[in-house]
Amino acid sequence: MSKLRYSASISLDGFAAGPDQSREHPLGVGGRALHTWTREAGPGSRVLEEDNRGVGALIMGRNMFGGGPGPWGAEPWAGWWGPNPPFHLPVFVLTHHPRPVFECEGGTTFTFVTDGLDAALAQAVDAAGGQYVDICGGATVAKQYLAAGLLDEILLHLVPVFLGAGVRLFDDETLDKVTLEQIFVVEAPGVTHLKYRVLR
Amino acid sequence: MSKLRYSASISLDGFAAGPDQSREHPLGVGGRALHTWTREAGPGSRVLEEDNRGVGALIMGRNMFGGGPGPWGAEPWAGWWGPNPPFHLPVFVLTHHPRPVFECEGGTTFTFVTDGLDAALAQAVDAAGGQYVDICGGATVAKQYLAAGLLDEILLHLVPVFLGAGVRLFDDETLDKVTLEQIFVVEAPGVTHLKYRVLR
Repeated sequence: MSKLRYSASISLDGFAAGPDQSREHPLGVGGRALHTWTREAGPGSRVLEEDNRGVGALIMGRNMFGGGPGPWGAEPWAGWWGPNPPFHLPVFVLTHHPRPVFECEGGTTFTFVTDGLDAALAQAVDAAGGQYVDICGGATVAKQYLAAGLLDEILLHLVPVFLGAGVRLFDDETLDKVTLEQIFVVEAPGVTHLKYRVLR
Repeated sequence: MSKLRYSASISLDGFAAGPDQSREHPLGVGGRALHTWTREAGPGSRVLEEDNRGVGALIMGRNMFGGGPGPWGAEPWAGWWGPNPPFHLPVFVLTHHPRPVFECEGGTTFTFVTDGLDAALAQAVDAAGGQYVDICGGATVAKQYLAAGLLDEILLHLVPVFLGAGVRLFDDETLDKVTLEQIFVVEAPGVTHLKYRVLR
């Protein structure tokens, strides 16, 4: 059975993105610093690659996919990533606004799910074929799955930078109800990978 | 020359203490969970012990020492820790309210410093004899030293719990001016120790 995992880069002061997200700054001002580690080589990164091989599908929120709020319009936003997005997997985008499936080069398919968390998870699990379903980006989406008791693991990439402001990864008063178990910690150049199991 | 280090336990959602600090809950509601790791044994703890051997003096804020705000009064607060506090070191307490030096059993001495950050650091460095000066607890105090360019290292004990609310360890818009270098990461039961150097 597929596990649902939240995978996110986080600054030392707890931000998953910088302030003032825009087309120019999809990760917010300063937010790119959270992802420079992905370009580094090293033993830690290899561990992570091994881990990433086990991912069969992704879930993201509308904000992560981008294009602003509201209906998609006549020339719908095609994502931040150009014709060949770096996912190479089925991606399920949670949105209130229906839209046909959008197939890209390199095996990335965006399916737009309008009937909620459970439906998106069911479709993603179906597509993942027993591998992980990862929630990528989208702190809001992850919080909703966590609150619904549907999240199995949290994989954090803790980056030694301060952003000072932005979107906090964990900012929810009900989080104190969640119990975690530390699974592994891997130090790598410019990042520490931390994996936790959500206990129920 | 002594280095100034900020050493603190932090929850996965970024809190250094829980909400509603009081005599009954000096670490805030739920805040004790941040310190249970100190009772665990294991390789990580040994590394930490080694590290702690190099500490010669401590700096803390008035809030960490406790007793509420304002003048000390006729029967001044003697700290949260009883007659033999667990520090066994000279401790310099930043306060606006003067008070004589307060000596406890076991080698802990509380000196109350009313003339600011620089004065407290100078006295602590003098007492530390070349060993580390640690800022213990007191996120506000650490932020002030960081902003003043006086902090050398940050040692975090990242605990896999969510507090949901409380006192955020890093909550300052000017932090994005600070650059860090990852020094070491040590995984231990129920905690990850992370050490960073502050670059100038």
